[in-house]
Amino acid sequence: MRLRKIPSARGRLDLQPELVVLDPACHKGRWKGRFGNGNPIFLEIGAGKGQFICGVSEQLPGVNFLGMEKYDSVLLRAMQRLTATPRQNTLLVLGEAEKLLDYFDENEIQRLYLNFSDPWHKKRYTKRRLTHTIFLEKYHHILLPNSEIHIKTDNRKFFEFSLQQMNEYGMVFDCINLDLHAEEPESNIRTEYEVSRSAGGATIYRLVCRFR
Amino acid sequence: MRLRKIPSARGRLDLQPELVVLDPACHKGRWKGRFGNGNPIFLEIGAGKGQFICGVSEQLPGVNFLGMEKYDSVLLRAMQRLTATPRQNTLLVLGEAEKLLDYFDENEIQRLYLNFSDPWHKKRYTKRRLTHTIFLEKYHHILLPNSEIHIKTDNRKFFEFSLQQMNEYGMVFDCINLDLHAEEPESNIRTEYEVSRSAGGATIYRLVCRFR
Repeated sequence: MRLRKIPSARGRLDLQPELVVLDPACHKGRWKGRFGNGNPIFLEIGAGKGQFICGVSEQLPGVNFLGMEKYDSVLLRAMQRLTATPRQNTLLVLGEAEKLLDYFDENEIQRLYLNFSDPWHKKRYTKRRLTHTIFLEKYHHILLPNSEIHIKTDNRKFFEFSLQQMNEYGMVFDCINLDLHAEEPESNIRTEYEVSRSAGGATIYRLVCRFR
Repeated sequence: MRLRKIPSARGRLDLQPELVVLDPACHKGRWKGRFGNGNPIFLEIGAGKGQFICGVSEQLPGVNFLGMEKYDSVLLRAMQRLTATPRQNTLLVLGEAEKLLDYFDENEIQRLYLNFSDPWHKKRYTKRRLTHTIFLEKYHHILLPNSEIHIKTDNRKFFEFSLQQMNEYGMVFDCINLDLHAEEPESNIRTEYEVSRSAGGATIYRLVCRFR
């Protein structure tokens, strides 16, 4: 998600160290210590304005959440949302998926969320898609065995691509929804983007899968 | 597909032995001999009124086609269509998927088509779905290694189920289309059911996959 660039964003994020982590590599292998408890850690890559991470961290108080976002101007919006209802189990992280192995140790994460990731629809950008094998290898490393990856998207081609990549990698498909909102589980937390796309008639796809 | 029962169907099928095989078990291991050439054999399970098998056998004259259907009254309709434009490379078969291993030897088939199979949506009928592991084992046996299975359906839950079963079985996904008619390949042959369902606004799903 891109927003208007806010020049002061970085400085404003820096003022809330209890909510925002600007140097995730410094916490590698020590995230449980950062949260101050032994609860499992769930990670969202591409947290956007934070609607999902704020909702899910309220729904699951016994879990620690990291909402990672690469644009500081976007993360600032998430921070503003989180500031309104701060909670102990949620941190926002300025970081990018390419560097996951710098941020997290083997088995340090217990669930991964990819909500409406950039589809990078042009063929020459295939390797940037967050469900490309290049990224699956990173997820495989940082996720505890049997941890789930939850994917939602409204982009048909991205979803087709993801199913193929994950099948090719040998992952287990626990749940496939080809029209999530047709029978929406009560537990589903809609992102802002999901709300607006669904209102516009888009089909929402969802996959829950695991490494074998 | 069910049609009004036609009491004379079986007798009328019996009159066209050059087009219709009523005793497929008698040809097990000898289908190439029945066609009189060494071309590969592609099988459609659930040929219905024969629109697909007639179209595809015209498109691929170097392939032998078997259109299998379990209801004789339905097969009669396919026979009437085929009689109008008979061709050497197409046979209709009265038979059912449960008995595939009685009909075909190991590696005897080189492609399988499942077009708009009965979704058997009630949970207690799960095992009747033609993409259930029970059937995948049979397909695995009669298909030559690396042969493709082509699936089309407009039933979302059947498609979700099929993706899961085939992933679980360890199959390769060569192509997934979550809206086939949005970018319909020229080679796609619409079945009668596909035409009417698509006109009614249904989404058509397609999967091409292989056993490893």
